[in-house]
Amino acid sequence: MIRTIPARLKPYVIRQYLSSKAALSPTIKEQISAPTPIGSIFEVRGFVKSIRSSKNVGFLDISDGSTSKIINVVLVGKNQPKFQVGESVRVKGEWSISKGMGQDKELKYNPENPNHAYEIIGRVPEDYPLQKKATSMSFLRTLPSLKHRASTIGSFYRLRSFLETQMMDFFNHHSFIKVSPPLITSSDCEGAGETFEIKQAEEFFEKKAYLTVSTQLHLEAISLALNRAWTLTPCFRAEESKTSRHLSEFWMLEAEISYLDDLEPLLNFTEEMVKYATRRLVEKKEEYLEGTYLEKEVIESRWRHILGDWRRLTYNEALDELNSKGANLAFGDSLNLDHERELAENGPVFVTDYPVSLKPFYMLKSLNYSEDKPTVACFDLLLPQFGELVGGSLREHDYDTLVESTNKNNMNLDDMGWYTSLRKCGTIPHGGFGMGWERFVTYLSGHDNIRDLVPFPRAPGLCKA
Amino acid sequence: MIRTIPARLKPYVIRQYLSSKAALSPTIKEQISAPTPIGSIFEVRGFVKSIRSSKNVGFLDISDGSTSKIINVVLVGKNQPKFQVGESVRVKGEWSISKGMGQDKELKYNPENPNHAYEIIGRVPEDYPLQKKATSMSFLRTLPSLKHRASTIGSFYRLRSFLETQMMDFFNHHSFIKVSPPLITSSDCEGAGETFEIKQAEEFFEKKAYLTVSTQLHLEAISLALNRAWTLTPCFRAEESKTSRHLSEFWMLEAEISYLDDLEPLLNFTEEMVKYATRRLVEKKEEYLEGTYLEKEVIESRWRHILGDWRRLTYNEALDELNSKGANLAFGDSLNLDHERELAENGPVFVTDYPVSLKPFYMLKSLNYSEDKPTVACFDLLLPQFGELVGGSLREHDYDTLVESTNKNNMNLDDMGWYTSLRKCGTIPHGGFGMGWERFVTYLSGHDNIRDLVPFPRAPGLCKA
Repeated sequence: MIRTIPARLKPYVIRQYLSSKAALSPTIKEQISAPTPIGSIFEVRGFVKSIRSSKNVGFLDISDGSTSKIINVVLVGKNQPKFQVGESVRVKGEWSISKGMGQDKELKYNPENPNHAYEIIGRVPEDYPLQKKATSMSFLRTLPSLKHRASTIGSFYRLRSFLETQMMDFFNHHSFIKVSPPLITSSDCEGAGETFEIKQAEEFFEKKAYLTVSTQLHLEAISLALNRAWTLTPCFRAEESKTSRHLSEFWMLEAEISYLDDLEPLLNFTEEMVKYATRRLVEKKEEYLEGTYLEKEVIESRWRHILGDWRRLTYNEALDELNSKGANLAFGDSLNLDHERELAENGPVFVTDYPVSLKPFYMLKSLNYSEDKPTVACFDLLLPQFGELVGGSLREHDYDTLVESTNKNNMNLDDMGWYTSLRKCGTIPHGGFGMGWERFVTYLSGHDNIRDLVPFPRAPGLCKA
Repeated sequence: MIRTIPARLKPYVIRQYLSSKAALSPTIKEQISAPTPIGSIFEVRGFVKSIRSSKNVGFLDISDGSTSKIINVVLVGKNQPKFQVGESVRVKGEWSISKGMGQDKELKYNPENPNHAYEIIGRVPEDYPLQKKATSMSFLRTLPSLKHRASTIGSFYRLRSFLETQMMDFFNHHSFIKVSPPLITSSDCEGAGETFEIKQAEEFFEKKAYLTVSTQLHLEAISLALNRAWTLTPCFRAEESKTSRHLSEFWMLEAEISYLDDLEPLLNFTEEMVKYATRRLVEKKEEYLEGTYLEKEVIESRWRHILGDWRRLTYNEALDELNSKGANLAFGDSLNLDHERELAENGPVFVTDYPVSLKPFYMLKSLNYSEDKPTVACFDLLLPQFGELVGGSLREHDYDTLVESTNKNNMNLDDMGWYTSLRKCGTIPHGGFGMGWERFVTYLSGHDNIRDLVPFPRAPGLCKA
């Protein structure tokens, strides 16, 4: 006897004046973390990920994306329904000890048992594209609506959510306030960013307005008032970069810290932040590794790199090191991606004290600043096989010096008055950093292409849906 | 003997290959939560909030914004330095039992003690505007750089950060994945939103592109793959609303839930979410109430409203109730702000099942839908003296019905194909909601003007800094 559960089991009645206890249907994550007793009846909901059969028994893998774990349904008895990969289903059966290999529990469904039931909630067309377990990333990129259902993509999203939770804990523990600097701005943070412009701004805001490339300047104003502030917020860059490391819309984790007159505690803090989240991930590694079809060795070697020793080099020391290996770099030259990867060949490295000419206007001079080698108190964090993850610096907190620097950089002083004026009213030595959030998640995921980490990536020529 | 601490106490030396333990300077929050023993020497850093003196003793209130709490410095002995309100300072002295009223500990600074020291880090101009304790909000709005240092504004920011942390905990506990739908989009969620347009989109993305008014449609695509997903993300509306309840750039908390075919568990979940964060706030109420100059009775009565009983009314029942009190509303009329406040006069109320004509294209029909009174399975959550906080619905999950609805709403089916196609591939009954994040924080803060809750508000004619 095949029983079909009607689409709406429960009558839809609003009980007036009464908060009833009707709850959401449990996710597979919840069902696995608080398992029902063996022999009891329960209902699983999810997508059919794969179908197998042997002799008189059929098997369904059911996944709902709430966890990397799946629930195996064993179809016993005659008159079994036909399932298709990709269908959304619910199956009610008996929670049982598994007799097969590889898993210890399974849901037994028998059409002849009157307590068992199933429903095919949503069918799929014959050409449903997500058939195979390990679908290629390049194929998934052609499926902006459906790619989210691929196991590895789901594991990226769960990883990102997990890491954001760790950051929230970390910053709360360190007495930071999470704040929301504006995304629409009339200032241009880096002085030379390629910014998206808002079309109707001049009518609507009565001035030109842009999408922020970094919230740092506004974050400084807020954090000076709160001692420490951080944000995790979208940023936008209209760069024509079609690489696997760039997005036109991305999220940035930025932090600003007051009463900071030395780069060293800032490096220590940055290192501890990155290691903290990674340590928490390693504690949960089974959950992450189970969900991905990427190479587990690559992933675990990246995690080991993060948790190992980090080097600290000044820019000048970095030049010496690169030149000793055959480069031909002089003071003032920028480091390209190959240089960065060479420096970080054996582990993460902080490169500090870059030349003034390579960095934005707001950075404080290095303590070892000299007229022939003028440098600023800044750092880039470089990762093995990856390049830059974090950039930070101490910020110039002296009014006259900052104004001189804005002038040298040909910036409009009127536009920047709100920012420079902070240095006239109880200024405080401070510093901070920005970390490309998708880059961090991508690195820890074991993947290389940042675009696959984002549900709907935006890049030149790319704005699907 | 007056001792001035040099601006840079610690030499700035990068210790190569070595992670030293140099840490950030502690915040006042950290110093108060892990107090130093009485009689020990420690250094406080912050702004001078007020200065008093009596007989031979002076008093400084020092605040750094990390907490609502201040540290009181007692200036004893001769040759005291002159401080000004607003200056950033650090003072090193002896942690002591207070002999005065109102506080139990204080930092004693005596210029004649060689272990004591101070530094005025940043001076203020004579016309420094933040002199008085309780500066008016309308005056603070004229100070985009400095308003963040006002006590009440600081308490808003700490409240927002606290509430976001509670939401992270709440959604993690309920098996949701936090995700990042796009902000730049070629779709228009509500079908008739007033959207900001990206100026260079047609060259850059090779199509027109807008800033999202709600991430719901993209969030649906993601959450269908993950069972439950939520986001807290900026949204943008180019509406010409110059009210205290609207912003052109605001954050929205959105959640989508799969396997949901009834409004009731969605209402329960929404109610529990709002109550959860509020309960956690009430547990920490001293910290919040101490930091604000708003009326404590107003604040606490709002919290009581949230934690009390909530009513649930259908739209038709709401019409009856309003008409019995003298309104003259017919089916199809929208409820204005006065109606909403009347319904919620004595506590929060869910109004459900609005007419189809008042709601967007994607909503599922009510179970009691009829041709003469066609309604959809939706809700608005209305708060006393405030109006709408949350709006949600079940989403149409049948392909043909959804396409019919997009046609009726004159939407471009080609643009929406990525969204409607989800209903052809393993569709799932689902629903969700959106909550204006600043509205929530504003309501719990006890304040009325949403713009003061935001560091740099954006609204028609308003884009400072």
